[in-house]
Amino acid sequence: MNVMNSVTKPHERLADLLKDELADVNALIRDRMASDHAPRIPEVTAHLVEAGGKRLRPMLTLAAAKMCGYAGPYHIHLAATVEFIHTATLLHDDVVDESAKRRGRPTANLLWDNKSSVLVGDYLFARSFQLMTETGNLRVLRILSNAAATIAEGEVLQLTAAQDLTTTEAIYLQVVRGKTAALFSAATEVGGVIADRPEPEIKALFDYGDALGIAFQIVDDLLDYWGGDATGKNIGDDFRERKLTLPLIKAYAAANDEERAFWKRVIEKGDQRDGDLERALELLNTHGALEATRQEALSWAAKAKTAMQSLPQSEMRDLLIDLNDYVVARVN
Amino acid sequence: MNVMNSVTKPHERLADLLKDELADVNALIRDRMASDHAPRIPEVTAHLVEAGGKRLRPMLTLAAAKMCGYAGPYHIHLAATVEFIHTATLLHDDVVDESAKRRGRPTANLLWDNKSSVLVGDYLFARSFQLMTETGNLRVLRILSNAAATIAEGEVLQLTAAQDLTTTEAIYLQVVRGKTAALFSAATEVGGVIADRPEPEIKALFDYGDALGIAFQIVDDLLDYWGGDATGKNIGDDFRERKLTLPLIKAYAAANDEERAFWKRVIEKGDQRDGDLERALELLNTHGALEATRQEALSWAAKAKTAMQSLPQSEMRDLLIDLNDYVVARVN
Repeated sequence: MNVMNSVTKPHERLADLLKDELADVNALIRDRMASDHAPRIPEVTAHLVEAGGKRLRPMLTLAAAKMCGYAGPYHIHLAATVEFIHTATLLHDDVVDESAKRRGRPTANLLWDNKSSVLVGDYLFARSFQLMTETGNLRVLRILSNAAATIAEGEVLQLTAAQDLTTTEAIYLQVVRGKTAALFSAATEVGGVIADRPEPEIKALFDYGDALGIAFQIVDDLLDYWGGDATGKNIGDDFRERKLTLPLIKAYAAANDEERAFWKRVIEKGDQRDGDLERALELLNTHGALEATRQEALSWAAKAKTAMQSLPQSEMRDLLIDLNDYVVARVN
Repeated sequence: MNVMNSVTKPHERLADLLKDELADVNALIRDRMASDHAPRIPEVTAHLVEAGGKRLRPMLTLAAAKMCGYAGPYHIHLAATVEFIHTATLLHDDVVDESAKRRGRPTANLLWDNKSSVLVGDYLFARSFQLMTETGNLRVLRILSNAAATIAEGEVLQLTAAQDLTTTEAIYLQVVRGKTAALFSAATEVGGVIADRPEPEIKALFDYGDALGIAFQIVDDLLDYWGGDATGKNIGDDFRERKLTLPLIKAYAAANDEERAFWKRVIEKGDQRDGDLERALELLNTHGALEATRQEALSWAAKAKTAMQSLPQSEMRDLLIDLNDYVVARVN
């Protein structure tokens, strides 16, 4: 564990610096998740939106816009847009993964039903497009609608790659870019776009969000085999769901014949028995797959840092650099 | 059955008149349902898009744009947008309704799985927003993103109204506006908007689409109790799914105590036995609920006709009027 845990965490410092804007974003979210006709919509949405998420993605948009000197009102709309897209994705993910818990609470698909999660997710997607349209900025609309398509494509790719041991690191990276990095990079990029900054700065903001998102997801996938103690992760979820994440892909690439037979049984056939998770963890360690995964996360975090350091120094910029360090601190 | 069935149907004549544009729309749809990374996406989409739907909604957009004298390229994008929104909605509907058949073929959720239907639907929603953004017309973006929100809201409302015998005709109308009329009215309205027509004409196009969509859905709901022979409908599906459609709402409003007990058992409790559908049909007839529903459909069709007749005469306008007549001809 890192020394950063003993002081205020970077996302908490960001939240403090952005507290007025975040209050506006929360008010806009509450306003737009309302429905005159279908009270089920705000019920389901509130369950998720108010469950104590860190508002990481909307904070990225607010921080990027502010460090770019944006003085208009639309970073609030864009931050709410990003959170709505994220929330819609979570609702649909929990249906697809048949999840029972999210952020420590029962999922909407469990509390209500899959139907409500699907349809309320659709409503939030539509609301997000209404919100971004209100900015009147066509470039922002292109970036965010492209991100939405990339997210869905990544989710479908993840679905078809599940249980498939031929999944490569390149496919894994596409899945990660889709399911996580696309929204991170769009969130930071639009901050520069509405502030009308020069192209190299917008590019740097995109690169930061992209690399931060990838590092974030690799850490998440690593902690699924390495977490425990204070990380709040439940070890072995991906293993049980037979997801091909980076640690497993690396271990399978280095496996001998006997080990390949093991992975085929537990991942392809889904025949998992007592002791199999322990055996999997042992193989991941034997082949250095966890350590190699950790190095990959650190390498993406370094790219994010380099991108951000190319931008003019400011308090907000330095906080975004700290946030990036914090994302990998859990495995550093 | 109406004499119109013996000659070419209005939607076939529309398709003939718009065949070049429809070919462009189909090419654009094929192009945009592709995915470099996830072949599952075009597989699922093609199954539905190429299943021989009538392309009614995209034809409305093309026809409206042409009758308004639009000479640019974007009615093609808007028609493809409308079809993508419709297709995404069908994919999610079939998950929500747990349907096994659509257009006479097994549904995607049956052929693949619910997960694929949810995620491919999300992809098509995102694609539809990319397409409409390409028009660069912010008013069109507002209209279509509002329509998407109204559709999702209507679907949620339908979900919560199911099995609820206190559902009123006003709630039914909201559901119908959401699930069907919102996309019809957006489809015709955007045709006038991209052609930059005066506000009263745009309003008339909206009113036509709105009333046509409502008439279309009421006819569909009526045929669920009245179809059979040549309508292609499977009698009693809504009854079995305990949906509160207009015929049932009218019959329940006129029911005596003994009949109310019957409806409570079969709709609220879902305790349906042999002979219950026959009993339901008898009650719908006894109270004139089917005839009153038919009158309502005809009344909405008359509104659609009036709206369209307010616009300058043209071949396309007259075909849209014929289309409207055709929609209710199945029950006329």
